[in-house]
Amino acid sequence: MNAIVDDAARLLDAAARAAKTAAGTLARTPRPAKDAALIGAAAALRHATPTILAANAEDLAAAPGLSGAFRDRLALTPARIGAMAAGLAEVAALPDPVGRVLAEWTRPNGLRIRRVAQPLGVIGMIFESRPNVTADAAALCLKSGNAVILRGGSESTRSAAAIHACLAEGLRAAGLPEAAVQVAPTADRAFVGAMLRAAGLIDLIVPRGGKGLVTRVLEEARVPVLAHAEGLCHTYVHEAADPAMARRILANAKMRRTGICGATETLLIDAAVAPALLPLLVSDLAALGCGFRADARARAICPGLPAANDADFATEWLDSVLSVAVVDGVEGALAHIRRYGSEHTEAIITGDAAAAGAFLDGLDSAVGMWNASTQFCDGGEFGFGAEIGIATGRLHARGPVGLEQLCTWRYQVIGTGQVRP
Amino acid sequence: MNAIVDDAARLLDAAARAAKTAAGTLARTPRPAKDAALIGAAAALRHATPTILAANAEDLAAAPGLSGAFRDRLALTPARIGAMAAGLAEVAALPDPVGRVLAEWTRPNGLRIRRVAQPLGVIGMIFESRPNVTADAAALCLKSGNAVILRGGSESTRSAAAIHACLAEGLRAAGLPEAAVQVAPTADRAFVGAMLRAAGLIDLIVPRGGKGLVTRVLEEARVPVLAHAEGLCHTYVHEAADPAMARRILANAKMRRTGICGATETLLIDAAVAPALLPLLVSDLAALGCGFRADARARAICPGLPAANDADFATEWLDSVLSVAVVDGVEGALAHIRRYGSEHTEAIITGDAAAAGAFLDGLDSAVGMWNASTQFCDGGEFGFGAEIGIATGRLHARGPVGLEQLCTWRYQVIGTGQVRP
Repeated sequence: MNAIVDDAARLLDAAARAAKTAAGTLARTPRPAKDAALIGAAAALRHATPTILAANAEDLAAAPGLSGAFRDRLALTPARIGAMAAGLAEVAALPDPVGRVLAEWTRPNGLRIRRVAQPLGVIGMIFESRPNVTADAAALCLKSGNAVILRGGSESTRSAAAIHACLAEGLRAAGLPEAAVQVAPTADRAFVGAMLRAAGLIDLIVPRGGKGLVTRVLEEARVPVLAHAEGLCHTYVHEAADPAMARRILANAKMRRTGICGATETLLIDAAVAPALLPLLVSDLAALGCGFRADARARAICPGLPAANDADFATEWLDSVLSVAVVDGVEGALAHIRRYGSEHTEAIITGDAAAAGAFLDGLDSAVGMWNASTQFCDGGEFGFGAEIGIATGRLHARGPVGLEQLCTWRYQVIGTGQVRP
Repeated sequence: MNAIVDDAARLLDAAARAAKTAAGTLARTPRPAKDAALIGAAAALRHATPTILAANAEDLAAAPGLSGAFRDRLALTPARIGAMAAGLAEVAALPDPVGRVLAEWTRPNGLRIRRVAQPLGVIGMIFESRPNVTADAAALCLKSGNAVILRGGSESTRSAAAIHACLAEGLRAAGLPEAAVQVAPTADRAFVGAMLRAAGLIDLIVPRGGKGLVTRVLEEARVPVLAHAEGLCHTYVHEAADPAMARRILANAKMRRTGICGATETLLIDAAVAPALLPLLVSDLAALGCGFRADARARAICPGLPAANDADFATEWLDSVLSVAVVDGVEGALAHIRRYGSEHTEAIITGDAAAAGAFLDGLDSAVGMWNASTQFCDGGEFGFGAEIGIATGRLHARGPVGLEQLCTWRYQVIGTGQVRP
């Protein structure tokens, strides 16, 4: 066991040192070369489609016991490979986040001070079964001038290797170091442990996957992490909500896609409007195939709903299930969210600007919304072009993590001979 | 031993939970109440000067074996207490960093998105002997809407308690929760360990002190840390430097104050100008009482200089000692800095804009300077009003950490009924 751990640490050390050197080059690479690498990789992906599909078929054949949902996430098709290639080209078209002057001012002594955006360095990406994350994450890291070490699920090793070969081809063609994008050289889980302990070698870890994976990463990592462990999002229907808008938004927030982190898991509805509105909301969602867990006050209005227990309100369903609680005003909604929420995304539906302001100001969540679907919590929908994940921590970045959030800054101070008194 | 650790963990847990509740209040406290608390605390400090001096005398009497420098850092005088009170009033006069709209845009679907500055939450401050840090750090945390738990050196317990009583008086008078500013309830070192492990209870640790303290914190912390372990700063005199400017800046960068992290520790001088300029720089500094450790090329020009070994170039002297190396051009300077530097602050002295640009772009340090003294790396000198420290990590903040860097952000998304397609 120790031999495996030592071996993983050695492999990680070599990979991270090569990545750091490559990151030094990438940080000083102007936009055209980075874009050329992305566009070259996209062409290589399209060209290598048969090879990638064959590798993916081997991955699928090697794991016959997988569940249907898991197989679906793992399986690639020509359309999915085409979407990956299109994603690379889209990232190439985004503005370069490196070198942006974030702030600039002049001091009374004449010193000019500039805060300039700069890549973070080496990013470690830990994810589960979807092989497309290999291409998507590599593109965002490369465009933001960061080197990346990608560690996907062990079931997708062959698919990831085939995709990685295309990324390497793009880098080579653009004259950039191949070590800028690496996949884990071993499928051993000890390599993940080595990544999490690599303070000083890896600058940031981004985990993508289920709560189990993210929780392990957050607990074990000695390297900074940007992640969310849970997206237990609430939609609060205030007494001054437009009923038609509330019905339209809730149906979307819960049922558009139930498996994403921005999906609403709990409906909070004001006692003042619940008797009239809750039955309509319930029948809308039931018609879409949604089930319910309701508190006693909600069941007093809709007696057919199953009873919720305390644990239900703390559950991120990621499924066609909605927890329902009747609350008293904005303060009641905020108290419920503070008790059960995950500081991800919450929405209020109301026509009352003062109530909306009180709700948004009272939240501690990364994202607060007024009269919109919680499913808008997404880097693309925010206009970031793409996202590497959503962060609910408080340091460095909160909410969708796009190219700008994959940067740090440095100061440049320009003088004319000033000395400090 | 375990009983002590358990006890410290219990005390920290209680302190942090009280701090978190207070932070919730502070985050929503408008500027006038925060400023009133600071001004009230300043008045209380002035009023309590005799009490604080008596407590400080007890601290000094209880530690007779301390070195002179240590005693000087621990000792308070009426002037030092006055300076602390003035510092509180200065922070009160600074703009409120909370609630600033950092960015705002509208999406094609009409969603308006705002990124709004928000306090981090609960900050843990770990520092050594200077009792004034109690007041300075509390002021910055309070103004930025954060609660703080202060753990100073065990030798200054009585002084810190007397200062803390004044801060509490200011909070009470302004109607703010006293738990917003707490000092460690025990001088036991296990409390520091408990702070470092308090992920989820403390949002950020800021250590202030020697390399030993900061290194321990960086290695042990499970909570995000903003800090620098070392300030091994370089001043590089380029061949196109104005000689008079180089002499003036170097004397200031090295000798203005030798004990601060922004003091220059190593002079790098271009081979092209070293024969003419190095003797002048050496004689200037020698006249100010500075000693030297020089490489072979420098000693070939100034044979009287003591020889430097490899470890000398990796040493942050914090004293009247300067390491000296002759280098070949910007690339030679950058290579030396990459090998020995601490990514804190480096300066180039040159009249050549292209060389300055190559130097500044080639650095990985938090701060790069052109024709200015490295001693300008300071929150006050940057115009931040005050700083809680300097950070050389890459996440969240780099360089001086002022009020703005003690904030995170959240998003507010304002719709008119939008649902996601």
